[in-house]
Amino acid sequence: DIGVVTINKHGHRREGWQSLPVFRQLCACIYGYMVTLQLTHFHLFQIDHFGFLEDGVFKQRYLVNDKHWHQKGGPILFYTGNEGDITWFCNNTGFMWEIAEELGAMLVFAEHRYYGESLPFGKESYSDSKHLNYLTSEQALADFAVLIQELKNSRAGAQLSPVIAVGGSYGGMLSAWMRMKYPNIVVGALAASAPIWQFPGMVPCGDFYKIVTQDFASSGFNCDVNIRRSWKAIDNVSSTGRGLQWLSDEFSLCTPLKKRNDAVGFKAWLQETWVNLAMVDYPYEASFLQPLPRWPIQVVCKYLGFNASVSDYQLLHGISQAAKVYYNYTGSASCLNTSQTATGSLGFLGWYYQACTEMVMPMCTDGVQDMFEPQEWNFQAFSDECHTLFGIRPRADWARTVYGGKDIAAHSNIIFSNGGLDPWSGGGVTHNITDSLVAIVIPDGAHHLDLRYNNDYDPPSVRAARALEVKYFKEWILQAKKAP
Amino acid sequence: DIGVVTINKHGHRREGWQSLPVFRQLCACIYGYMVTLQLTHFHLFQIDHFGFLEDGVFKQRYLVNDKHWHQKGGPILFYTGNEGDITWFCNNTGFMWEIAEELGAMLVFAEHRYYGESLPFGKESYSDSKHLNYLTSEQALADFAVLIQELKNSRAGAQLSPVIAVGGSYGGMLSAWMRMKYPNIVVGALAASAPIWQFPGMVPCGDFYKIVTQDFASSGFNCDVNIRRSWKAIDNVSSTGRGLQWLSDEFSLCTPLKKRNDAVGFKAWLQETWVNLAMVDYPYEASFLQPLPRWPIQVVCKYLGFNASVSDYQLLHGISQAAKVYYNYTGSASCLNTSQTATGSLGFLGWYYQACTEMVMPMCTDGVQDMFEPQEWNFQAFSDECHTLFGIRPRADWARTVYGGKDIAAHSNIIFSNGGLDPWSGGGVTHNITDSLVAIVIPDGAHHLDLRYNNDYDPPSVRAARALEVKYFKEWILQAKKAP
Repeated sequence: DIGVVTINKHGHRREGWQSLPVFRQLCACIYGYMVTLQLTHFHLFQIDHFGFLEDGVFKQRYLVNDKHWHQKGGPILFYTGNEGDITWFCNNTGFMWEIAEELGAMLVFAEHRYYGESLPFGKESYSDSKHLNYLTSEQALADFAVLIQELKNSRAGAQLSPVIAVGGSYGGMLSAWMRMKYPNIVVGALAASAPIWQFPGMVPCGDFYKIVTQDFASSGFNCDVNIRRSWKAIDNVSSTGRGLQWLSDEFSLCTPLKKRNDAVGFKAWLQETWVNLAMVDYPYEASFLQPLPRWPIQVVCKYLGFNASVSDYQLLHGISQAAKVYYNYTGSASCLNTSQTATGSLGFLGWYYQACTEMVMPMCTDGVQDMFEPQEWNFQAFSDECHTLFGIRPRADWARTVYGGKDIAAHSNIIFSNGGLDPWSGGGVTHNITDSLVAIVIPDGAHHLDLRYNNDYDPPSVRAARALEVKYFKEWILQAKKAP
Repeated sequence: DIGVVTINKHGHRREGWQSLPVFRQLCACIYGYMVTLQLTHFHLFQIDHFGFLEDGVFKQRYLVNDKHWHQKGGPILFYTGNEGDITWFCNNTGFMWEIAEELGAMLVFAEHRYYGESLPFGKESYSDSKHLNYLTSEQALADFAVLIQELKNSRAGAQLSPVIAVGGSYGGMLSAWMRMKYPNIVVGALAASAPIWQFPGMVPCGDFYKIVTQDFASSGFNCDVNIRRSWKAIDNVSSTGRGLQWLSDEFSLCTPLKKRNDAVGFKAWLQETWVNLAMVDYPYEASFLQPLPRWPIQVVCKYLGFNASVSDYQLLHGISQAAKVYYNYTGSASCLNTSQTATGSLGFLGWYYQACTEMVMPMCTDGVQDMFEPQEWNFQAFSDECHTLFGIRPRADWARTVYGGKDIAAHSNIIFSNGGLDPWSGGGVTHNITDSLVAIVIPDGAHHLDLRYNNDYDPPSVRAARALEVKYFKEWILQAKKAP
């Protein structure tokens, strides 16, 4: 849920596990028939932790559940919220709910500033770069640090509670960084599917799309090959008005393609669709970004098993059937909206601002090792786009300087978990760095599968990963109790 | 050189070691007859590392000497500049100059933003709280981190050079924090006389003045007792116009005391004088804050050996003789300026702003365990004063949150050295925290004696401290070379 896709506006229902309406002061997390309620709180934070001129405060939201908490020093599992509504993370991080009782843990889900209801300047927060100026990961980490300190000071018994940071995706990066920058405040971190190395100069820019391609290649005969062919086929077909009309009908597009040039956006939309599928290629029916069948890429690939002799129209018919697996699994969509894989609303804009400032994540394709049209990483073009949009320019080297890049061995107590199917694993830590900076790879897992509720269809690798994660949590808790 | 006193405007000459005039592009460090020249550089830094709206840059000064540097991965000793002109630190950190050859080290002295010539907004830098907004320790650490990265990238052979942060006093705090926050960038830190615990709730607010008192108590018969008596004597004498005149004459004050109330400022000036003496109670003639004899407090105390039966006037005559040891050891002062222990210029103002924002350091006296008039720590009054001066208010808990307070055991490779005579040792780390967070106490050392050039009068404890510091440096360098 970084960059390519934003999550907070998507539905997240699946059979037997439905989300209730979210009330203002009460968030309901439902698992099966068990309903767990927790209070929603707001805390007043400094808008600017790193300067004293702007001394304003704002209301930031966090959710607390202490049903299973052992009041005398029981641990706190602290979800470091990412770029979206925190109630969504609360509902989608079943792992924390499932281990709370065993650990006697309090659960806290903290919303990231500028997302959900935690808007420093209310409706003005996104109005211009002046108001956006306090949307940085450093400010978010400082929010979390201050919140934890105040929770510990204000709740009887919490003073001695060791805190473990948990997060997925960008939230996982924040978890890892939280432990790196505030080891006084969190005793350890689970950074699930956290691409902390997806920054300039750390990993090849093509890895991300290579992994997407591998997912398709291994999910059906010629599946990647035919997606690779499809771009040329689209170019061919979209070169005539009749072809554009055919494409629009075939894909049931809400807004028909009009000009030859519209094919550019159409292809980008398809590319993003394949990426999203790679992220959510879960072994069971789920609804992370869209309602989807189990192993959705296998379902998609059933429509793409052509051999070489297929015509452009046949090929694109297959592509359209495949796309509809993603966009219309429930059968309720009357047409497909090509501006709709990533929501155009607030969450998206916030993440885009972050990508345009600190979170510069190079991506590229070559059409050979991946199934996409070749596109180089062009920092200058990206920077110019950021400047046009926000009036600011990214600082490409800052993430490495402030968060250590590959030189993180001096830190401790961080689990980096990654799914082998997840394209973000390309920018993740997939080998142990030290005894206490450990990597867990879940070969048949997609994007932070380990953070989800357990499921009968879970592969053994994710069950083992969760068990190992709990084992480390217990070690850290024990360490903390032994500390002077 | 924190808080009570600012250093950058004071002279720093001693026999056989004189400072040359500082040229704009060339700083000269002289030790004995050896003259070492190094180039002064300026680097363009972001004014704001933590926001993207303010995208301006400014010229920050740093000094480099690579005479002894082993170009293939020889270490870099990096002085994390504090609240003053960096050439002053360059001249007063002889330890670095003396070990450069043995370690094959490059020396870098980086100036702290807003001090010396490193002014983000030129002459406007101190004009108001808007311009002062980027004067924080976090911004300074980020400057250092970026500078080191760029030095390593731009100098042939430096890529593999392990960097060790070195600093004294506030600069020592920055060294320690540099290792804590950027362990990717510095392999270790020597934090000399760094009171990282002089923050709210970490050490008793009275410790500082207790240590000052002990220094006087152990340096001459009844020395602390008579200073404790002096406050009442000043009150008595200053209650009449004649008494005020007598005091002004006796102390050769440049500006005579006029009103009874002037005694308040006069007493504060004396109190600061005793504090300064405690900081610079060096075993040899030196000129850190003022030119002074060896063991200056012993010299001072020779004038304060009265027993109980002394009159107010006799007592205050002794006090005036004692004060003149500090203010007129060279005999060149025609009168004493009571606004002059801490310079009222830029360096002072900058530090005062820092104290009024992040660097809140509680101090108090009780007149029983110390020799001063009782004064409680009053945060609200302090905050109000800050608001009047700068239009901002301090955040008392922030330093603990961001720099860990007493919970720093997760960090590594930091030496905390402290002098037993130094009042700042009260807020320092004087016991080992882990195997690699070690304390070195120099019982007969004042403020960062270990950072100074060696001297024939150095006590064995400081020689041993320096040897141990070098031993740790070598270990860290070796560790860094072994790292993957």
